[in-house]
Amino acid sequence: MLSVEEATRLVAATIRPLPAEYLSLPLALGRVLREPLYADRDFPPFNRVAMDGIALRYAALAEGQTEFLIEHTQFAGQPPRPLQDPNAAVEIMTGASLPEGADTVIRYEDLVIRTDEAGRRLALVQVGAPRAGHNVHAQAADRHHGDLLLPAGTVLGPAELAVGATVGAATVAVTRRPRVAVVSTGDELVPITQQPEPHQIRRSNGLMLQAAAQQAGAETAGFHFNDDPEALRLGLPALLADYDAVLLSGGVSKGKADFLPQTLRELGVEQLFHEVQQRPGKPFWFGKQPGGAVVFALPGNPVSTFVNFYRYARPWLLAVQQPTATATLAAGSPVPAVLAQEVQFKPKLTHFLLVSLEHGPDGRLLAYPERAGGSGDQASLLPSQAFLELPPEQEVFPVGSVLPAWRFR
Amino acid sequence: MLSVEEATRLVAATIRPLPAEYLSLPLALGRVLREPLYADRDFPPFNRVAMDGIALRYAALAEGQTEFLIEHTQFAGQPPRPLQDPNAAVEIMTGASLPEGADTVIRYEDLVIRTDEAGRRLALVQVGAPRAGHNVHAQAADRHHGDLLLPAGTVLGPAELAVGATVGAATVAVTRRPRVAVVSTGDELVPITQQPEPHQIRRSNGLMLQAAAQQAGAETAGFHFNDDPEALRLGLPALLADYDAVLLSGGVSKGKADFLPQTLRELGVEQLFHEVQQRPGKPFWFGKQPGGAVVFALPGNPVSTFVNFYRYARPWLLAVQQPTATATLAAGSPVPAVLAQEVQFKPKLTHFLLVSLEHGPDGRLLAYPERAGGSGDQASLLPSQAFLELPPEQEVFPVGSVLPAWRFR
Repeated sequence: MLSVEEATRLVAATIRPLPAEYLSLPLALGRVLREPLYADRDFPPFNRVAMDGIALRYAALAEGQTEFLIEHTQFAGQPPRPLQDPNAAVEIMTGASLPEGADTVIRYEDLVIRTDEAGRRLALVQVGAPRAGHNVHAQAADRHHGDLLLPAGTVLGPAELAVGATVGAATVAVTRRPRVAVVSTGDELVPITQQPEPHQIRRSNGLMLQAAAQQAGAETAGFHFNDDPEALRLGLPALLADYDAVLLSGGVSKGKADFLPQTLRELGVEQLFHEVQQRPGKPFWFGKQPGGAVVFALPGNPVSTFVNFYRYARPWLLAVQQPTATATLAAGSPVPAVLAQEVQFKPKLTHFLLVSLEHGPDGRLLAYPERAGGSGDQASLLPSQAFLELPPEQEVFPVGSVLPAWRFR
Repeated sequence: MLSVEEATRLVAATIRPLPAEYLSLPLALGRVLREPLYADRDFPPFNRVAMDGIALRYAALAEGQTEFLIEHTQFAGQPPRPLQDPNAAVEIMTGASLPEGADTVIRYEDLVIRTDEAGRRLALVQVGAPRAGHNVHAQAADRHHGDLLLPAGTVLGPAELAVGATVGAATVAVTRRPRVAVVSTGDELVPITQQPEPHQIRRSNGLMLQAAAQQAGAETAGFHFNDDPEALRLGLPALLADYDAVLLSGGVSKGKADFLPQTLRELGVEQLFHEVQQRPGKPFWFGKQPGGAVVFALPGNPVSTFVNFYRYARPWLLAVQQPTATATLAAGSPVPAVLAQEVQFKPKLTHFLLVSLEHGPDGRLLAYPERAGGSGDQASLLPSQAFLELPPEQEVFPVGSVLPAWRFR
């Protein structure tokens, strides 16, 4: 049986960058940039006044001058008028462009301004400026015209949108959303609006997978098939042709109603693997339709479905939004967490252990195993924030072990 | 001047739960639940078969019987037919309801099934079951009918939607989205589609605030006003009346074009504070229109706007989505991180220090200060993931200090 590492490698090998599309900048929140953004001007683009006060020549101050005639007042957004007299000053507001002839700003807090009998305004400076350029955010201090600001592959968050706006990127190239068909199977499953018979349960995996795929940036559509190979043979081809990925839950185990592996192969989906050395989620089936969708056929027990999605499908969905294919499922990768209680797990399987996370006062991320009734215990997901990946060769995991945690909250 | 703690308390004091609305479960992703959800049945609702194989009576196996006549086959979704002969078995699939008379399931992997000359199917069990109930997920093993599953205040993620589906919560009560008006001010700002004059810059704070508020669950609309008190007096009243919060950027400092505090007071907005002992973002102004919006008037330097949003406005937006008012801004609270480089900061101000975060191999969250050119250095946000909150009474922060980190990625 395949190891988790080998399964990961086979899933990663199917990563192909999705096409790009052009979006208005405000609509691109959360999307992945496909073309780099450069500074179209210096950052700041001019010597930008950083405090309200007066602009003057540092040398005059350094020579002992303390009172300055205010020649005029300049607001942000006004074209700067030069300082006429090198021993005078310009009253000036934050965000304004520093006038030619001035190099330093003294803030109002350090000034007294008076009007003399001739009606002229004079500023008495009550502190020495520590250096020329004080309270001036100098042109190009942060970035130069032409500098790379956002490389392709950047996820556009609020800060990135702000930088995009500053450089005038009103339209940006981003990866189009992955299109994901979510298919639940199982004769025992009824719609959520229906009262189940005693031996039935309501459908929940499909909604879970759609929500989780949406949070990974996907557009989703939901479908349900009963355990009927003919219905699958009729319904699946359109999904395989139209979507980037098909996420199925259920129907991949050894039971007599588990038609999916056989049906998928008959429909021309190349099986890349079936069964992985892991718990929960051993019967995971994975394949690819040449020219069509990648197929994640996940075991139907809710914890198995959930864990397999976050371990394999979510990193894949994030990776295909990147501009270049990677050989690994690094996107959305796990973080190291410290086991807070001893765990024993004997089978020679990678064990995905549901844990709640807590930030210790020393800055360590602590993982507390959650009591779970196995892969069918859907409610055990509720108090958990992550699952630890426990390697198969080890049986006892002492307190303090540092292990990879796959966060899902 | 107000401390960060006092400012936090005054902001928290304005928290009022927003009204609830009813949504179809799939549309409620990311929203906050307003009514608790209970188990409408046991979890699992019946003795659920957890493996494909045969169901039998444990006692028969324990007495040494190894071969069992298969009476019939039962699929998931079928009403269970009882075991007729206590020494026979039912072939059974995962997800089926365990038949009356059987208590244990032996999986296919541990069986050989043959057909005898009379056409009857017989299963030869090749292992002993370790206990009665093996491979059966017993009714109510995880939760009981009536148990509280999701308390009011739960954020509905993929796992919560799945549980909601299981209990048939096709429609759920959730908090309606906060309505946020984002207003930028400043005569130097031009639209992003416009080529700025040398002394102008493009608008970016408004887009940043809208994006960040959306990520906190808000519906947003964007506005811009020039530095003109008359325009503000005409434009702001409708926003104060129609929105839950108004986020302004710029116009709150000491400059001659900083009309906002005065204008807001004239419009009847009660000033709760102006200026906080913090850097960046000291001129932060905060108030409340009686019967109307809460007003966050943030300083306009991009890093000041950003940090104040994440320190005060985002926790507020998360808190008003909770069903009960809290006295603190605990929602979206900071996590402890370990300073990886010494930092010195002399002024008696709380310092918000931009940092990039890295998970150390020992499970500690490490914070690396980012070089930043001050509160105007928008690009310094790009490599950062968080800001540390450095308390005002301390000047030197040695390597290894554990400090609260406000994450924004």
